[in-house]
This record gives sequence, C-alpha cells and structure tokens, in this order.
Amino acid sequence: MSSSEPNNSGALDPSSLAPRILQVVQGDGTFDEPAVQAYMHSSGVESTGIDYTVVAIMGPQSSGKSTLLNALVRCRVVFGTSFTEMDALSGRSQTTRGVWLAPAPRISEPLTLVMDLEGSDGRERGEDDTSFERQSALFALAVADVVVVNMWAKDVGRESGAGKPLLKTIFQVNLKLFQPAAGQRRTVLLFVFRDRTRTPLDLLRSTWEVDLVRMWEGIAKPPAYEGLPLTDFFEVQYAALANYEDRAEDFRAETHLLRRRFTQEDPETLLRSYPTKLPGAALGLSMAKVWEVIRANKDLNLPAHRVMVANLRCAELAEATFQAFAEDPAWQEVAGEADLVPGFGWRVSDQLTEALAGYDEEARYFDPDVSAAKRAGLTSDLLDLVRPAFVAQLDALRGMALAGFSAQLADPQAPEGEAWVDR
Amino acid sequence: MSSSEPNNSGALDPSSLAPRILQVVQGDGTFDEPAVQAYMHSSGVESTGIDYTVVAIMGPQSSGKSTLLNALVRCRVVFGTSFTEMDALSGRSQTTRGVWLAPAPRISEPLTLVMDLEGSDGRERGEDDTSFERQSALFALAVADVVVVNMWAKDVGRESGAGKPLLKTIFQVNLKLFQPAAGQRRTVLLFVFRDRTRTPLDLLRSTWEVDLVRMWEGIAKPPAYEGLPLTDFFEVQYAALANYEDRAEDFRAETHLLRRRFTQEDPETLLRSYPTKLPGAALGLSMAKVWEVIRANKDLNLPAHRVMVANLRCAELAEATFQAFAEDPAWQEVAGEADLVPGFGWRVSDQLTEALAGYDEEARYFDPDVSAAKRAGLTSDLLDLVRPAFVAQLDALRGMALAGFSAQLADPQAPEGEAWVDR
Repeated sequence: MSSSEPNNSGALDPSSLAPRILQVVQGDGTFDEPAVQAYMHSSGVESTGIDYTVVAIMGPQSSGKSTLLNALVRCRVVFGTSFTEMDALSGRSQTTRGVWLAPAPRISEPLTLVMDLEGSDGRERGEDDTSFERQSALFALAVADVVVVNMWAKDVGRESGAGKPLLKTIFQVNLKLFQPAAGQRRTVLLFVFRDRTRTPLDLLRSTWEVDLVRMWEGIAKPPAYEGLPLTDFFEVQYAALANYEDRAEDFRAETHLLRRRFTQEDPETLLRSYPTKLPGAALGLSMAKVWEVIRANKDLNLPAHRVMVANLRCAELAEATFQAFAEDPAWQEVAGEADLVPGFGWRVSDQLTEALAGYDEEARYFDPDVSAAKRAGLTSDLLDLVRPAFVAQLDALRGMALAGFSAQLADPQAPEGEAWVDR
Repeated sequence: MSSSEPNNSGALDPSSLAPRILQVVQGDGTFDEPAVQAYMHSSGVESTGIDYTVVAIMGPQSSGKSTLLNALVRCRVVFGTSFTEMDALSGRSQTTRGVWLAPAPRISEPLTLVMDLEGSDGRERGEDDTSFERQSALFALAVADVVVVNMWAKDVGRESGAGKPLLKTIFQVNLKLFQPAAGQRRTVLLFVFRDRTRTPLDLLRSTWEVDLVRMWEGIAKPPAYEGLPLTDFFEVQYAALANYEDRAEDFRAETHLLRRRFTQEDPETLLRSYPTKLPGAALGLSMAKVWEVIRANKDLNLPAHRVMVANLRCAELAEATFQAFAEDPAWQEVAGEADLVPGFGWRVSDQLTEALAGYDEEARYFDPDVSAAKRAGLTSDLLDLVRPAFVAQLDALRGMALAGFSAQLADPQAPEGEAWVDR
C-alpha cells in the first residue's frame, strides 16, 4: 500500500488513501460485499449518478491482457500508485485468481472502472476446473457497460482457442438468468485482435462476424427471445493492435487511440447512455446479487469433461456387460433350469466374476468415482437377473429334501431315516 | 497435376509422373488403401528398407502449420512440382480436411515423407465435430518417426489453447490400443514454438516440460505401464521460430537449421534408428491397419460436448422432477388413500402434466434428442409411481359398485335397481 505517498502536486490526494485495486471475487468464488461497497464509496462511483463506466477485460491466459490493461490503467502520476502494486496487477496473470477492479486514471471523464478477469483457459486451473471462467465471464457480461474480449488475431480461425465455447455459454445463460430487455441496454462487446498480422482487420472482422452469428443462432433461447438477433442485446465493436514487442511504436499509438474511445468526446466513442442505467450508488449491491445468482446456476458449474466422458462410457460399458452376460449361452444353459443343476452356485458365481472383471478392464481408464458407481449399478442389475434362478434352485433343493423326508415318513425302517427318528 | 511438366534438367524425371501429394485419409475418415500402396511404390518408400522417415505435423488451425510445412517441403526445382499444387497444399488449411502425405524434396537423405494433419480446433468443424482431430493425431503418433507439434509460443500458458486435452487423449489411447514396448522405439516429439517472444526458449521449455509430465501422470494407463515415464515412449525435442512476417530473415535461417535436423549428418539430428523399425514395404499396410483400429475405438469418437452436458443435466432434471413430485403434499394426500377420492383421475393427471411442464421448461435448453429420451424415462417412472394409487382407486370403485349391486339384490324393490332388473 502506498497510502501515505504524496501525489505530484505535493498535497495529499484523498483518493490516494483508498485502495486502488480491489479483488472483487476471490479465486475460490467468494464475493466480499462490504469491501465492494466500501470501494464504491471511496472510488467515488457511489456519488456519480449514472456518469460512470465499467469496462471488463476478458480473454485467455497469456493473451497479452495485462499489457492492454496497463496501457489503459497504469499511470504513476495521477494517483501516486506505486509500481509494485501495479506490477502485482499485471504480473499476477500467472499466479493470482479471481476478478479485480481498478480505476482507469488515464480516462478522466467519465469515471471508469476497469474489471480484470482471471485469464480463461489457464494451465493453473487446467482442464477440470473451468466453472470459474464461465461464472466470471458472465459476471462481466451482466455488469459491465463495455466488455473487451482480448484475443490473438491468429485465433480467429479456431474454435476453443478463440474462446467460442465460453462465449456461447455466457450468451445463453445470460438470456436465461438475467432476461435482458431486447433493444434496451445494449452492452458493447469490443473484440480486440492482438498482434494483427498482414491479414486486414476487415477480413478478420467478417470471419468473426459470421462466427458470432452462428454462435448466437446455435444457443437455446427462452421462448420470448426466439428469433431475436445478437444485435438486440449487444453492440459489436472491433480494434486491432500491433505486437507490443516488435512494433512498440504502433502498439503505443494504437492503444492511445483505443483509450480515447473510452471518452465521450471521441468520434468513435464506445460509451453509450441509456435511461435504464443503474445509478452508481446501486452498483455494489447489484454486483453482489448478480454474482449470487451466477454462483447458484448449474449450467455454469459443470463437472470436468473427463467426468462427463466417464459417465457416458461407463454407462455404455455396464449396459454392454449386462447384455453380454444375459445372452451368454453358459448362463442361459442354467438360467431356465427347474431341476437341480450340479455346482450351480459356483458356476454362476464364476460367470458373474468374469463379467465384472471384463467391465473393470475397460472402466479402469475412466474417473474412479464414476466407474465405481456404475459398477455398483451393474452388480445390482446382474444380481437381480440371477436371483430367480437361485430361487428356482433352492426350490429344487427343497423339493428334493421334502421328497426324501416323505419317503422316510412312509417307511420308518429305511436306514436313512434312523438318525432322525432316534432324536 | 503436372505429370508432363519437365524438371529443370530438361529430361522427364520418372518421379514427376507420380502424384506428389496424396490424401491418405479423407475428411470423412475414408482411408484409400490401394492409393496408399500405389503411393508407397511410386514414392520409392516400398523399396527403401528401413531407410526412410515419416514426419507428421500436427497443430491447431491457423497455427502457421502450412508455412512451416512449405519451408520443409516446397521446392519447385527438385521435383518440378507446380506451385498450384503446392499452394493447394498450403492454402487448404482453410478448406480441405483429412490427412495428407508429401515427399520433403529438400531433405535428400533419408527419403522423408511429410504427413500433414488437418488443423485441430478449426472453426469449420466447430465444437461438435472433434473426433477426427483425435483420430488423426493418434494416427500420426502411431505411424510417424517424428511428430512435429506446431504451436504458438504464447499458447504455452494455456490449457485447451495449447492442445493439452488432445495430447492427453492420444497419449492414453496410444498405450491402450497399440501397447508400445517401453524403451524400444521412442517416437520423437518435436514441439515447435512459433513466433517466439522475448521469453527465452529455456523458460517456455521448462514450463512445458512440467505440463507434459503432469499430462502423462494424469492419464489412466494399462497395468503394465503403471509408473513408467513419458520418456520411455517419447523423446521430447524443442525448436523455436521467429514470426515469418515481421522477422522473415530470422524465420528463414531458423527453418533452415530445423530442416537440417531431419538429416543424419546434423549434430542435432532428429532421426533415430532402431532395430524394430518397420520396412518401407510394410508401411502402407501398417497405416491401413492402424487407421482401422483407431476408427473402431470409442474413446476417440466421443459425442459432442453439448450432448454429454445434456445427458448429465437432463438426467439431473428428471431425477429432481421425480423427487419433487413424489414428495409433493398434493400428491401424497391422494397417494395412500384407500377410499374413493373425488376427481382422482384429473387431479393426478394435472399434477403429472405440471411436473412434466416443469421438466420441459429447463430441458429445452439442452440437446433435443437427449432431453426427449430423458423425458420418456421420467414419464415412465412417474406412471409407475402413480399406478398403485390408480389401482387402489379402481378397487375402491369396484368395491362401491359391488356394494351397490349387493344392496340391489337384497332389496329388488329399491328404485336404483329398476333399470338393471328390467333388462
């Protein structure tokens, strides 16, 4: 913290007392409502009426999100913010999780808060832990006025590399959970293509437009939204930036122009005003509610892909194992037998053991919890199948015992009966 | 085809009569065995003994795979191949699907075939059609001596953007299907990091090594392979290339050095000899068999992600709907009633309709086939649940009818009996 550091005028700027960077959501999904409310107060958003902007930046891990962020946010002079603090903000993409808020000091008017999301598709969370990226991306979509989607120009031709599954999911769940009014408040979706190549922006843009429409048409919508276009809810904008290492000057100039678009005066301004905008005083509470709704939603909180694969494949395996057992001639030979079958017990037991071993051999490649659960179901189904035959065998045994007993009763002199009669 | 085009010496090179580029596998998965056998003959692989190399190149769509490929393959002079043909090879990443074979004319010794795989994660196939990328990648892993994995340096920190789920899958299924002998024939895995940034190769490399080990440890292995390291089956190598637009000279020099590594003389050669290598004469047949095994495998041919999600969520919904119905006081009120309940039929029918409507409202967001199948199961479960109560009501009705009939018999003068008695 640099709360006592003077600003460049020499006087103590009251805003320097407030934390500049707030972790709104922890990596584990905890939302600190009191801290957010306090931040809305100290940052001045609370008293700004509707004259504020929330800009969210999302995009995959290592997509140069922090470079863009710093180009928009970093400015030592204005707030006297120490570089350490800011470097923590930019460097954390490798280490820290969650959703962050920071003021954008280079944009003086309107008051602009930049919301930085943990990079999606990161190696730290890996393949299994993808709920948070869906939840935080939808949070940004529901809360921000402008959502910046940062992506590599070269990823435009890709599917998951371009983040399309994530976009589709948040488009769909947004309609379902928050029922935005069509044509009312259109969130600006700004796609920033990084490290533009010789492929002209127009070409990238037209490829991407086609994909956007396809994504939108592919999502399942609530009945009231059927047939409505993407543009009833979003205004799509584009920007392209040069590589910041190899073409540093281009990058600086282009980010400068981009930053200008976040001010009202710019002819290409990204700021929109609409009558239903939430007053700044309600923003903290609204964020808390939105996050609560998102966390409770099941469509965003899916099990790992491998768990779903395991569910599917182990169910198939169990079904196939059951069918193979039921149709096995060795089983069918003893299944319908009303008379006593010699060694019935161990024969069927061997057959069952063999069937389950066959299941295990394949199922071992899948998630152990899932494969064990499906195995339990299979075992119970197999026991249900063989039970009638066991009962029939017991009946046959009982019948034989009874016949023997009757014979003894009829002829008490028979030697087999002696022991019983003596008792 | 340029079969009649003379080579640069003016004489007709016999090899120019043969097709230079062969589509081994069509986009729909068809493997043309006779064509492959003919190609092995015409390309000379058949008669080369074990003195040949198969180099496969895999990587995501738009990862600059074709640029790399051309740097290794393209050379008008050697084969007199027309540029049109070659441009079709390089440009098709946007349009054509499948697996391709081409000779690498710039590598004179040993005879080198380059196998080019359709780019993975492409927007054309989209999110639902991902079986082919798993199948073709495993094909490359099983068949090639060197597998070049082409990826953006910047994707190293990512998960699916770095192609990790695909690598994990083919590592796992390779062990299961082809049971390679540990430590015998180690396939060279060459990771080529494209558009290297200022991040040094060593840093990328150590990050990636950690991920590789994690991937390998995370896969489920057949018992015989438990505990064996990745390096018993693969030799991991690296290369980094500069951006070919912005640093064309660096790129040319670096690809030149990379190309040299495919020759025996180079100190950093990627070519390995091992006694169990398949003779060239058997390569065509082997490829056909490998592809057949791969196509029959279920672990590579998974349903679309959204179908798996639908299976999971609709099953949950059906279960929740059933539970809610069973525990609903309105149902429980009539469920255990032995006496006649007025309007029982329509009351229960309304309750059932309402329960199914609740299911439909949520299930409409999921794959229609899956949600319909789960709905059928739910309907049948609900009917099983209410059947005993219906039977009890019928019994109550029958009891009442019988009681009325007995009363009539006992007192034939009763007015209610008249109609019946008159008949």
